[in-house]
Amino acid sequence: MSIDIKAVTMTFGKTTALDNISLKLEENKIYGLLGRNGAGKTTLLNLITNRIFPSNGEILLDGEQVMENDRALSKIYFMTETNFYPEWMTVRKAYIWTKEFYPEFDAEYAASLSEKFSLSTGSKIKNLSTGYQSILKIIISLASNAPVVLLDEPVLGLDANHRELFYKELIRAYSERPRTIVISTHLIEEAADIIEEVVVIKDGRLIMQDQVENVLSKGYSVSGTATAVDSFVRGKKVLGVDTLGGLKTAYVLETPQKDSLPEGLEISRLDLQKLFIQLTN
Amino acid sequence: MSIDIKAVTMTFGKTTALDNISLKLEENKIYGLLGRNGAGKTTLLNLITNRIFPSNGEILLDGEQVMENDRALSKIYFMTETNFYPEWMTVRKAYIWTKEFYPEFDAEYAASLSEKFSLSTGSKIKNLSTGYQSILKIIISLASNAPVVLLDEPVLGLDANHRELFYKELIRAYSERPRTIVISTHLIEEAADIIEEVVVIKDGRLIMQDQVENVLSKGYSVSGTATAVDSFVRGKKVLGVDTLGGLKTAYVLETPQKDSLPEGLEISRLDLQKLFIQLTN
Repeated sequence: MSIDIKAVTMTFGKTTALDNISLKLEENKIYGLLGRNGAGKTTLLNLITNRIFPSNGEILLDGEQVMENDRALSKIYFMTETNFYPEWMTVRKAYIWTKEFYPEFDAEYAASLSEKFSLSTGSKIKNLSTGYQSILKIIISLASNAPVVLLDEPVLGLDANHRELFYKELIRAYSERPRTIVISTHLIEEAADIIEEVVVIKDGRLIMQDQVENVLSKGYSVSGTATAVDSFVRGKKVLGVDTLGGLKTAYVLETPQKDSLPEGLEISRLDLQKLFIQLTN
Repeated sequence: MSIDIKAVTMTFGKTTALDNISLKLEENKIYGLLGRNGAGKTTLLNLITNRIFPSNGEILLDGEQVMENDRALSKIYFMTETNFYPEWMTVRKAYIWTKEFYPEFDAEYAASLSEKFSLSTGSKIKNLSTGYQSILKIIISLASNAPVVLLDEPVLGLDANHRELFYKELIRAYSERPRTIVISTHLIEEAADIIEEVVVIKDGRLIMQDQVENVLSKGYSVSGTATAVDSFVRGKKVLGVDTLGGLKTAYVLETPQKDSLPEGLEISRLDLQKLFIQLTN
């Protein structure tokens, strides 16, 4: 299922949360939706799932209007930061409940994931820690088998082992049954390995949409003494710099040309998180 | 100020949260307290700050018992996951309030950090997002100027830019005024650069305490075809393996000897997070 966001603007009172965003998300791809806190990511996900309505523009799911289109919406599973299960509910009950809305929900898979993540299915949701609330939502998202899965901060509060398990299970579920996945996360470097395409929002505007490998091949960082770095990057497109004592690292958004590198300077590959920080600072 | 944890055991009903832990934290060092969710990290921090009392053993601050020792406790600032400021309070008021308990609290520094993190000091604490609740607590911790600062999941909900800013400010504050800092975090790889010594707890037991650079020089990972890797690591101390199709990576806890490496295999440096995952899985 593809998602077509057409010239969408969203204002809350005097605040423009999203400003004329146009964006096409293709079927069966894994997207990373990146942006700083407050950039408008959650607003965009809420619009796609018709929880709020755009001030301008429209959103199409496989060419159909999302507004008041229950058939289309039942194909999207949205894992939000806010908990929308009643607090008294047990994990087991939440699985049964989900199946009412998502008939393709795979209860057996959910049970096996619960075991892998050591989530006790008899626990009440309100008694789960931040990490286990995330785990519950991750499990339901993966087992929902919805053609579109939107994940908002899926790894909040998870320890490193559980994050790794989540990334592995996501890839496994995706390869067995491809679907459109949008991951909004602040742990960019970890997610970089599983994201195919990156969408970057800054202050409500779309500032980048590209394949991860394209993005990374387009830039590099160069380090050395401040004087040497400054003279090397003169005239180049510099995103930003870091300094540490007399040393400097510059982040350059151009294809690197190693042969022309003066002695004493070192070139490194950009990582997605560093690039993001420089783009959005 | 040094912290001496002597044979501490902590039981809650039938659960042993900490099992005979002995650990010395030296003055003016930065420690990383690592462990999976539920390993006992927060229990240990609560014991150090006398919020709970050990079932067995004792804790000394500069040689003095921590129990019922208000003078010693006023030297420790503990940033917890739980919010202990009244919800109606504004950020500005929280700063004033902190100065009552921590006379060394630097209000000017707190104000300048608030600006850097774009935290509006007129906001009510209850209206702050998860990320900004963390930011408020980070600012108070850094500005407290307490000789001991304990940080429990300081970067929860922070975006990548704010996490980077936090690590930089922590290093800056530490170099201007050294203090004992304990950081408990799940974002191990990011924190690895600022941690001097690592303390790893697993199921309530201390399983490692060492300099980060020592830990990393003691191990390596080796990748290649499963057959080649298996035959190479035979007889070596293997922590764990990852497999991907016919390829395998083994994590070895020995000093690497590059000259003896068969063709087709590749050796990499361990990173702290990978090592941690293998140690605690």
